[in-house]
Amino acid sequence: MDVAGVFAALTTPYAEDGAVSLDQFRANLGLYNRTGLRGYVVLGSTGESVLVSKEEAEFLLAAGREAASTEKLLIAGTGAESTAETIAKTKRAAAHGYAAALVKTPHYYKPAYGPEVFLRHYRSVADGSPIPVLLYSVPVFTGVSLETQEVLALAEHPNIAGIKDSSGVIQRIVEVAAGAPKGFAVLTGGAGVVYPALCAGARGAVLALASALPEKCVALYDLWKGGRHLEAQALQQELAAASKTIVSESGIAGLKYAMGLRGYAGGPPRLPLLPLREESKRRIEGLLSRLEPAAATA
Amino acid sequence: MDVAGVFAALTTPYAEDGAVSLDQFRANLGLYNRTGLRGYVVLGSTGESVLVSKEEAEFLLAAGREAASTEKLLIAGTGAESTAETIAKTKRAAAHGYAAALVKTPHYYKPAYGPEVFLRHYRSVADGSPIPVLLYSVPVFTGVSLETQEVLALAEHPNIAGIKDSSGVIQRIVEVAAGAPKGFAVLTGGAGVVYPALCAGARGAVLALASALPEKCVALYDLWKGGRHLEAQALQQELAAASKTIVSESGIAGLKYAMGLRGYAGGPPRLPLLPLREESKRRIEGLLSRLEPAAATA
Amino acid sequence: MDVAGVFAALTTPYAEDGAVSLDQFRANLGLYNRTGLRGYVVLGSTGESVLVSKEEAEFLLAAGREAASTEKLLIAGTGAESTAETIAKTKRAAAHGYAAALVKTPHYYKPAYGPEVFLRHYRSVADGSPIPVLLYSVPVFTGVSLETQEVLALAEHPNIAGIKDSSGVIQRIVEVAAGAPKGFAVLTGGAGVVYPALCAGARGAVLALASALPEKCVALYDLWKGGRHLEAQALQQELAAASKTIVSESGIAGLKYAMGLRGYAGGPPRLPLLPLREESKRRIEGLLSRLEPAAATA
Amino acid sequence: MDVAGVFAALTTPYAEDGAVSLDQFRANLGLYNRTGLRGYVVLGSTGESVLVSKEEAEFLLAAGREAASTEKLLIAGTGAESTAETIAKTKRAAAHGYAAALVKTPHYYKPAYGPEVFLRHYRSVADGSPIPVLLYSVPVFTGVSLETQEVLALAEHPNIAGIKDSSGVIQRIVEVAAGAPKGFAVLTGGAGVVYPALCAGARGAVLALASALPEKCVALYDLWKGGRHLEAQALQQELAAASKTIVSESGIAGLKYAMGLRGYAGGPPRLPLLPLREESKRRIEGLLSRLEPAAATA
Repeated sequence: MDVAGVFAALTTPYAEDGAVSLDQFRANLGLYNRTGLRGYVVLGSTGESVLVSKEEAEFLLAAGREAASTEKLLIAGTGAESTAETIAKTKRAAAHGYAAALVKTPHYYKPAYGPEVFLRHYRSVADGSPIPVLLYSVPVFTGVSLETQEVLALAEHPNIAGIKDSSGVIQRIVEVAAGAPKGFAVLTGGAGVVYPALCAGARGAVLALASALPEKCVALYDLWKGGRHLEAQALQQELAAASKTIVSESGIAGLKYAMGLRGYAGGPPRLPLLPLREESKRRIEGLLSRLEPAAATA
Repeated sequence: MDVAGVFAALTTPYAEDGAVSLDQFRANLGLYNRTGLRGYVVLGSTGESVLVSKEEAEFLLAAGREAASTEKLLIAGTGAESTAETIAKTKRAAAHGYAAALVKTPHYYKPAYGPEVFLRHYRSVADGSPIPVLLYSVPVFTGVSLETQEVLALAEHPNIAGIKDSSGVIQRIVEVAAGAPKGFAVLTGGAGVVYPALCAGARGAVLALASALPEKCVALYDLWKGGRHLEAQALQQELAAASKTIVSESGIAGLKYAMGLRGYAGGPPRLPLLPLREESKRRIEGLLSRLEPAAATA
Repeated sequence: MDVAGVFAALTTPYAEDGAVSLDQFRANLGLYNRTGLRGYVVLGSTGESVLVSKEEAEFLLAAGREAASTEKLLIAGTGAESTAETIAKTKRAAAHGYAAALVKTPHYYKPAYGPEVFLRHYRSVADGSPIPVLLYSVPVFTGVSLETQEVLALAEHPNIAGIKDSSGVIQRIVEVAAGAPKGFAVLTGGAGVVYPALCAGARGAVLALASALPEKCVALYDLWKGGRHLEAQALQQELAAASKTIVSESGIAGLKYAMGLRGYAGGPPRLPLLPLREESKRRIEGLLSRLEPAAATA
Repeated sequence: MDVAGVFAALTTPYAEDGAVSLDQFRANLGLYNRTGLRGYVVLGSTGESVLVSKEEAEFLLAAGREAASTEKLLIAGTGAESTAETIAKTKRAAAHGYAAALVKTPHYYKPAYGPEVFLRHYRSVADGSPIPVLLYSVPVFTGVSLETQEVLALAEHPNIAGIKDSSGVIQRIVEVAAGAPKGFAVLTGGAGVVYPALCAGARGAVLALASALPEKCVALYDLWKGGRHLEAQALQQELAAASKTIVSESGIAGLKYAMGLRGYAGGPPRLPLLPLREESKRRIEGLLSRLEPAAATA
C-alpha cells in the first residue's frame, strides 16, 4: 500500500432535521473524486466521529465506499477507548472495503497511559486487523501523544503502515523518518506545516483543510514533489493563513462554512459544537476571496 | 435532594471471560449497603464507563438499582461527547430509577470548548433531564475543567444540583461555595483532600477509594461533621497516603486489587488498561496492612 | 525558630523618579508593626526582587531590619539561579540580621532541573547559610515545583526549617505535614486557601494580600487557631474574593493600588510590569468598599 | 545588517577553581573563526548567562569582541527581567562593539505578561538600544512565548531586526516569514529542525550544537542554500539525532562534554547544573564516533 500524497479528512453533513445526510456526503465525494486527492479519511476527528452513533457510522462507511472512485485510497477512523472495541470497528471498516484504518490513541485514562499501554494497544489492534493500521496522534484533542520511541517500535509491526501525526512537532517527523523502515509513511495533519513536514521526511498529509480547498492542498504537494521549492514555500504561507482562519480559529464549524462557500455541502456541526458566529463567517469569506485560484499555482 | 456525605465511585467487575459480571457487581453493592456510604455512582470514570458497551451499561444500571438498598442515593454517570446522546443516556438512567445524573464535561474538541459551549451543553442536558444533574469536572482525564464563573452560572439552573470537582483545586470550592445558591452541593473527587475540601465548603465526596475503604472514608466525613478537627486532620493524612498508593499510582487496576484484598470483587480492568504489576501489588498490600482499622477512628 | 502565623510579603515602593523609596518602605513597616502579623518577607516575588538591583536589595534589607519591630520575624528572599550566588545573598541577609531566608527554586534550565538538582542545591544553600532556610515553591512564576518526596527529603536537613508553598495544591500540604519532622513548617502562599491549608496541616501563611489587608489575614488565622471553624470558613470566602480581584487578576500593580486605598504606600510597579488600568482600579475600589471591617470578624 | 546563516551559541568555560576562563573562551573562538559560522552569540542561554555575575559578563563581552574575527557577526544576550536593566545591558554590549543584541522575553511574572507587556518592553528596549535588537522566544526555559501577532507587530519597529525562535513550532516561522517585512530575519534555535525551518522561511539558525559541531551545522545550511534538498534532509536527520543525545538529553553539561571530545574547551557547568553522568558521557561518545565526518557531506 502506497500511502503518499494528500488525503482529505471528510466532514459529516447533516440534514435540516439533524440526521446524517448521506446524500450530501456522497455528493461531496463525487466532487472530490475529480481532484488530485490521493484518498479520503471517513470518520476521523473532522468527521465528528465522536458525535455520531454506531448506526450512523455504519451508514457513513458504506456511503463512503460507494461514492469514492476506485483509484482513491479509503481510510476509516476506527479508534475507540477500548482495545476490543477498536478491533471490532476496524473489522467493520475492512468488511466495508476500506484500505486502511486510522486509529487514534486511547486517551481517557491519561495518567495510566504510558508507552507500555500504547505499544500493547496498537499491537493488539494491528494483530487483529484485516487491513493495515495507521497510528494517529492528535494531542490537541486527546491530550496525549505518541513519542518517537513508541512510533519507531510500532513501525516494526508488519501491519502498521504509518502514522498521522497532528502534533505539529516537526522534529518528531525528522526522527521517525530517520529511524522507521522504508515503507512506513508519516502523514502530517497540520495544513500550516505540510511543506516543512515533507522536507522533514513526511510522505503526505491528511488535512481537514483539503475538504474545502482540495486543489490548493494537492498543488502544494505537487510543487514539493516537483522540486519547485520557492513556489512551495509561497503556497505554504498562503495555506497556513487559510488553515488558521478556517480551521484553527473556527474549528469544524469554520471548515464546513468554508466548504459551503466553495460549493461543497457544509452546514453546522452537532452540539455541543456551536454554529459559526457571524463575525467568523465574515473572516472566512474575506480569506477565501483573497486566495489565488489554485490553477495559478499548480 | 440532599447530596451530602460520602459516595463510592463503583468499579465494574469482569468474569473470567472478560464479560461484565453483574453477580460480582451486585455482591459488592450488598456489602456497601451495610456501610455509612450515602450512595453510589454507577458508570463513572472509576466504573470504566468509556470501556463498556451500550448494552453492558444498561445491564449495570439495572443491576445497580436492583442491588442498592433504598436509603442509598443512586447516581448514574451519563456524560457523552454529544449533547443529544448525553440527554438520551440521562433519560435511560432516570427510567432505571436513578436519583441523579453525573455528567462529565464533553472534552474531545478542546480548542472549541469555551464557557459558551459548556453553558449551552449543560443547560440543554438539565432542561432535557427528568432527574437532577450534577456537573462533573475531571481535568486529569478530560484535559478541560469547569471554572468558577461557569459553575456559578450553571448553579442557577433549577435542575442542576451540584458538581463533582475532581480537579483538586480547593480554591474553586471556596469560590463556588461562596457564590452558589444554598442548595447547590460541591462534592470533591479527591480522597487526599476531603477534609480540606469540607472545610472549604464542600458538602461531601465521590471517591474511588471508597470502593476499597468505605468505612474509613465515611469516618473522615463523620469526624468533620462532629467538629473533631484534629482527628479529621490525622485520618485525612492516612487516607491521602492510601489514595496515593492505591489510586494515584496504580489507577483502576490498583483500586480493584485493593478491593480484592478487602473482601470485595476486584479483578483486572479492561484493555488498554493493563493488569497490575507485581511490584504495585506488594506496595498496596504493605499499605493496607499498615492502615489502622476503621473502627479505631470512627 | 517558631515559624507560624501570618507573614506579609512586602512590596517595594518607588519614588516619583522610579528609584526605590526607602522612606515609604519604612513607613509601611511602621504601620504593619502595630498589627498581629507574625513577620515580614523582604525581597520576595511580591517585592519585585527580580526587578531591583543588587545595591537596591542591600538598602531594602537594611531598611527592613531597621524599621521592623523586634518581635516580628524577618525573612529575606535570597533565591538566585546560581547556587553560589544564592549562598552569597543568604549570607548578606544573615549579616543584616534576618532570621531566615526564603529561597525560591532555581528555574531557568527547567529540562535539566530534576529532584537531584533541587536536593543538591538546597542542601548546599542550607549548609552554607548561617540562618535557617525556607524552601519556596512558586510554580505560577517559575514553572517548576517542589514535589512531596523532595520536600520530605529536604525537611530532614537541620537548617531547613520549612517551606512556602504557593502552588495551591492542598494535597501536598497534607502529605508534607504527615511526613515531615514536627518542627518543619509549611506556609501557604495562597490567600484563597489559607483556612483549608491550615486544616490540611499548614502552620501559617506568607501572603501578598497581607500587605493590603493585614488585619483580615491575621483574623482568619486567629479564627482557625481558636477553633471557630464556621467563622473561619466565612472569612476565607471573603478573602478569596479579595485575593482574586486584587492579586490574581491585577498582580503587583493591583496589590499596590489596594495598599494605597488602605493607607499604605503603594504606587506603580517597575516595567515591564504595567501600571494598573482604570477599569481594574474601579474593581478594586468596589471590592474594598464591600469588605467587612476586620474588627467585626476578629 | 544581514542576519543569515548559522550562529554558534557559545558556552562559558570555567577554570579549575570555578572562575570564568577567558583564555579557554578565546581559544574556542579562535577555532570557530576558521569555520563557516556566520557569527556568535555571547551570553545566551547556552552561555549560562543566568549563572554568571555582572562583572564576569563584562569580561566575557570584551573577550568575545577581542577574539572574534572581524567578518563574524557578534551578538550579545542582554535580556533581563527589568526593562531598564535590559536597556542598560544592551548599551554595554553596544559599547563593546557587538553588532546586535539578543533579548529574551521577561518571564518571571508570567500571569501578568500578556502581549501588551511584550510589545511595550521590546519597543522600549529597541528605542533605547544603539544596536539592532533580535527578539528571543525560548519557552522551554522561560515558560512564555512570543506569538505570531506579537512578532509581526514588533517586526515593524526599525530597530528590531529579527527573532530567534527556539520553540520548535515551525508553523510560527511560516506565519512570521509570510507577514514580516523583508528585512526581518527568523532564526531557529532548534538543531533538530533547521532544514524544515529554512524551508518554512527561516533565514538561519542560532545553535548550541554549533559549539560542538560547527562544520556539520554550516554544511546543512549550505546544502539548503545550494538547493541540494535530499542531502539536506539526510544531514538533518543526522543532526537531529546528535542534538537529541547531546543537547536535549544532557543539556549544557552534555554540550560541553561533546565540545571537549571535539577539541574545544568544554568542562562542567556551574551549579545548580550538575556535572554529566558517566552513562551520558558514554552515549555522547558513541554518538560522536558514529557521525560522518562533515567533509563527506559538505
